[in-house]
Amino acid sequence: MTLLEKTLSREVIYKGRIITVRKDAVELPNGNRSDREVVEHSGGVCVVPLTKDGFVFLVEQFRYPHGKAILEIPAGKLEGGENPEACGVRELYEETGFRLKEGQKLQSLGQMYPTPAYCAEVIHMYLANGLCELSDLDVQGNKLDADEFLNVVKLPFNEAVDLVLRGEIQDAKTQVALLKTRALGY
Amino acid sequence: MTLLEKTLSREVIYKGRIITVRKDAVELPNGNRSDREVVEHSGGVCVVPLTKDGFVFLVEQFRYPHGKAILEIPAGKLEGGENPEACGVRELYEETGFRLKEGQKLQSLGQMYPTPAYCAEVIHMYLANGLCELSDLDVQGNKLDADEFLNVVKLPFNEAVDLVLRGEIQDAKTQVALLKTRALGY
Repeated sequence: MTLLEKTLSREVIYKGRIITVRKDAVELPNGNRSDREVVEHSGGVCVVPLTKDGFVFLVEQFRYPHGKAILEIPAGKLEGGENPEACGVRELYEETGFRLKEGQKLQSLGQMYPTPAYCAEVIHMYLANGLCELSDLDVQGNKLDADEFLNVVKLPFNEAVDLVLRGEIQDAKTQVALLKTRALGY
Repeated sequence: MTLLEKTLSREVIYKGRIITVRKDAVELPNGNRSDREVVEHSGGVCVVPLTKDGFVFLVEQFRYPHGKAILEIPAGKLEGGENPEACGVRELYEETGFRLKEGQKLQSLGQMYPTPAYCAEVIHMYLANGLCELSDLDVQGNKLDADEFLNVVKLPFNEAVDLVLRGEIQDAKTQVALLKTRALGY
């Protein structure tokens, strides 16, 4: 079956700080009309920061929509036109104080559509696998946005994967990126 | 650091068919004020439908926010007050025509917050691991909503996991649920 839905009109309902909300009229594959609610977002980037001796750094952050603090890998949103890899390096530094070693690059773990039925956000996932020890680094503490508060948590990577498998880490990107890192043999 | 953010006021910006959008004023952990945009959603359920001979059924669906058709495990949203497991059984049947065998139950794969910075949706993930062969089933074809169109795709489970690891399946719940199912030894 051909699945294409054609846009008939677009209406911006709300233009906010983080999201824009649209309601579009569409033509369905059978020729009928319907509407589609769309949440636009500039896109996200997340990074699994692994040390050479098998630790990972997570951040504990209050997530207002869920009314509680949860554990996630470092992440942030793309600023206008920013390269996803550069954003990953920036967010890693801002949230944890870590930089990559000279000459090191992030390794792609693919992309993720968090909730594609109504949200256009794409999250780019990366592994920073050559992360060196805290003591080797130019650690200056984190540099957060004015409304951002978090605790950095260091865990053995195996333990972080176990938390995912036991259902104790709920964040989608953290679940995907840690399980993909495990599948790479870490 | 204490991470709690307190709600000072709530404003409903948009009340739609699938989502409600709020903008709340909050007090940050340092006492300053900010606002939080929140997308409310009734919650989702997804199911990994595995056959006893190692196949999985995915659905190909046009996802309007991304402008293309993508592969996902069968899923749907919770109708008011619905039990998540009952919703999984219902969506599995509606989208693929499959029922669970007499006496079988879904196995929980935990929960997922797709994008917790601004979205309150919780997705409940399940494995239907005792799914019997097509020929054994009371297959009546799928029973979709009026604005829902999809193709059912049967793949070897190993191949579906490879698609996730190669970055060719973007949907978050599908990535998490397939990788968790693999971690269970399937």
